[in-house]
Amino acid sequence: MEYQTFLDNIYVVFVEAETPGNIGFLARAMKNFALQNLILINPCKLANEAYFQASHGRDIVNNSLKFDSLGEFLEEVPIDFVVGTTGMPGGSYRLSRIPLKPEKMVQSINSKGKIAFLFGREGNGLSNEELELCDITVSIPAHPSYPVMNISHAAAIIFYELFKNLYEFDVEGLEEASLVEKNYLLGEMDKIVKNVDLPPHKIKTANRAFKNIIGRSFITAREAHTLTGLLRRIKIKMGQR
Amino acid sequence: MEYQTFLDNIYVVFVEAETPGNIGFLARAMKNFALQNLILINPCKLANEAYFQASHGRDIVNNSLKFDSLGEFLEEVPIDFVVGTTGMPGGSYRLSRIPLKPEKMVQSINSKGKIAFLFGREGNGLSNEELELCDITVSIPAHPSYPVMNISHAAAIIFYELFKNLYEFDVEGLEEASLVEKNYLLGEMDKIVKNVDLPPHKIKTANRAFKNIIGRSFITAREAHTLTGLLRRIKIKMGQR
Repeated sequence: MEYQTFLDNIYVVFVEAETPGNIGFLARAMKNFALQNLILINPCKLANEAYFQASHGRDIVNNSLKFDSLGEFLEEVPIDFVVGTTGMPGGSYRLSRIPLKPEKMVQSINSKGKIAFLFGREGNGLSNEELELCDITVSIPAHPSYPVMNISHAAAIIFYELFKNLYEFDVEGLEEASLVEKNYLLGEMDKIVKNVDLPPHKIKTANRAFKNIIGRSFITAREAHTLTGLLRRIKIKMGQR
Repeated sequence: MEYQTFLDNIYVVFVEAETPGNIGFLARAMKNFALQNLILINPCKLANEAYFQASHGRDIVNNSLKFDSLGEFLEEVPIDFVVGTTGMPGGSYRLSRIPLKPEKMVQSINSKGKIAFLFGREGNGLSNEELELCDITVSIPAHPSYPVMNISHAAAIIFYELFKNLYEFDVEGLEEASLVEKNYLLGEMDKIVKNVDLPPHKIKTANRAFKNIIGRSFITAREAHTLTGLLRRIKIKMGQR
């Protein structure tokens, strides 16, 4: 896998976790995106709840590394780019809290170096001093009435943004229909439309409506094939060839 | 708010929730995006855990509506568009499991009607019969080794995609610098660059490098202002005007 190095270079850092369940949920979200390096800064005790909520990600909890402080971690592991997360972005006078949305964050990271994503704490988030250590601060645009997200929810969204263009569904036959396949389908419909006694100006409209919905539907090759077969049978039942 | 009707029209449907904590986490994610309508189909008992994990979203748990079956809900509430979610997308022969990625899902929904998002169950997901009732099926592209996400994680990602272009950070002074402000900054740097005894061909390169990083940095007006002030002071210290 060409992106294995990228994955290996990502460190997920949970600062002063207060509840084992949240460590577990974070590990599960990491596992969903094949991230492995979990760093715990001065965490609560790792109770059973952490392993239970991690589900298939309990190996990540097992292999997590503990440090007493964020500074100690950053001294020990040579991180090239530190991304802070906050649910409390700041305006123009709090330079370290000026937030990027997750999509822009992805554009600004260099995929060749070691990257750390900092999350924490459940209660108070990252401190201003911790955000000062970060190269950028990312925040998720939520509703102003309650923008502070659960840590594993925020992490899942950020991981999703990182990998949404990299990961594909592991199933077959999802190719969108080709132009040829789509035109074949439209051609069959056209033959039917011309034989249901529509006034001429409505023939064009009907074909256009069908073309529009096919165009907007991300139709797969198999779906196009199925519909083309159906139209052919309709055509025959109508007495056409 | 112009999008209040859109919010009011969204129903989040949790099918056969098995653990109260997950109901709570789902409610919290809904609260972050100002969603209010939680529907529980044949759920487990609502223990304290549900209210605790909901955090500021406990009103959503309180106001949730229960139905015995998905069919009963769909008969009672006139939903215009049903979105199923699955961590187990299917290939071309399982038409109801052909997945859209969240971004494409957003393109295909009509923001004027009532929309239901179906999540569930923790163990086995939605059944084929339930997915048959859906207009589209959405799935999150995760790593093939473990693509099944926690329900509230999947929900958070889908809500995020729905609102990421709608919600803005509730802080002031985040406007990107205007062209004029950026050019003023580049101009100050240019005066400095021309006075540090660089060979002529390196003057252009230095200016270009600075322009590149400014261009890629989504610099805010305030940051541009701060840097321009700094450069002006440097210039003065160097004996320039």
